[in-house]
Amino acid sequence: MKTLVIGATGTIGAAVAQALEARHEVLRASHARSTLMVDLADPESIRRLYAKVGRVDALVSAAGQAAFRPLLALSDADFALGLTNKLMGQVNLVRFGIEVLADGGSFTLTTGILSRQPMPGGAAISMVNAGLEGFVRAAALELPRGLRINAVAPGWVRETLVAMKMDPSPGEPAAQVAQTYLRAVEGSMTGHILDAVAGTG
Amino acid sequence: MKTLVIGATGTIGAAVAQALEARHEVLRASHARSTLMVDLADPESIRRLYAKVGRVDALVSAAGQAAFRPLLALSDADFALGLTNKLMGQVNLVRFGIEVLADGGSFTLTTGILSRQPMPGGAAISMVNAGLEGFVRAAALELPRGLRINAVAPGWVRETLVAMKMDPSPGEPAAQVAQTYLRAVEGSMTGHILDAVAGTG
Repeated sequence: MKTLVIGATGTIGAAVAQALEARHEVLRASHARSTLMVDLADPESIRRLYAKVGRVDALVSAAGQAAFRPLLALSDADFALGLTNKLMGQVNLVRFGIEVLADGGSFTLTTGILSRQPMPGGAAISMVNAGLEGFVRAAALELPRGLRINAVAPGWVRETLVAMKMDPSPGEPAAQVAQTYLRAVEGSMTGHILDAVAGTG
Repeated sequence: MKTLVIGATGTIGAAVAQALEARHEVLRASHARSTLMVDLADPESIRRLYAKVGRVDALVSAAGQAAFRPLLALSDADFALGLTNKLMGQVNLVRFGIEVLADGGSFTLTTGILSRQPMPGGAAISMVNAGLEGFVRAAALELPRGLRINAVAPGWVRETLVAMKMDPSPGEPAAQVAQTYLRAVEGSMTGHILDAVAGTG
């Protein structure tokens, strides 16, 4: 398969690209530091990326920014960041990508378990993640030509906790999280939210 | 209790206002045709409404627009409508309303079962409804002074189906849907999504 990974320089994206590479062709794109550049918040940037790569069999997005901040401190700009970047950025990857994917191809997006397991500071992220999961469930009903769409919902990633000098024990190693993306790309499910959290194997 | 109903001229909002009125003081606001006017898409309009009404014990929103249209026909403007109006409009009712609610007061917002029971044409609405449900679950963890927040997720409303000349049998009468809002206002739960669909009593 020819696959395109968005956010390929991030902790999860790099692990997904590496895991895919064992069996598939991988094109790497990211906001910076990649040959293929894309700004999720800019619809035209997404269209330019697709025009450059041509037809692909699988699109994986492990990208998207949103603000983690106490509810009473979240600003208009904090909410707008998540809506424009992590939510509509990934929705636009799908909208503009439909004509780019080969028949039977797949979209695999990234949400996060705060969609359903909230924590203080996560109100804007929970909103964005849950919204994207609602979109995935619904869009799956209407995609043409056998296209599939799923989302992976990671919890804490071990490497991220280590980098933040936090207790790594609740974290799932990025290489393990990547296996869930592989199941979405190589499987046959559509409209699913696949949790990728420590202890769910 | 002193209650404020947003969307009070709509099918559900009017039924909620009528049901509340049996036991509570009710202030009615809507986009048009009410003494109190509010445009959910305009943050300043929300702030002006709150400045006018002063302290209230319960805020009920049965308002918010979003586009129902096939996935491949949904435009940038269709997505923006739902995000700006039904999603951020109601999120802003909460953000700006925290200082307006009396201790122990409550927010009751409106989502819709497309958040979890999708149908073709509903991708933008599923996204918005699910996003709002994610926000409600998370915001409940951080509201100060014993404030509560819940959402009601209606399915089809019988009066709406009749007005659209559709088969009314899958619909729940608005007066029945209103009872679910009453349970949210008068109860003690927080962070809950209360389904209000035909057959769930």
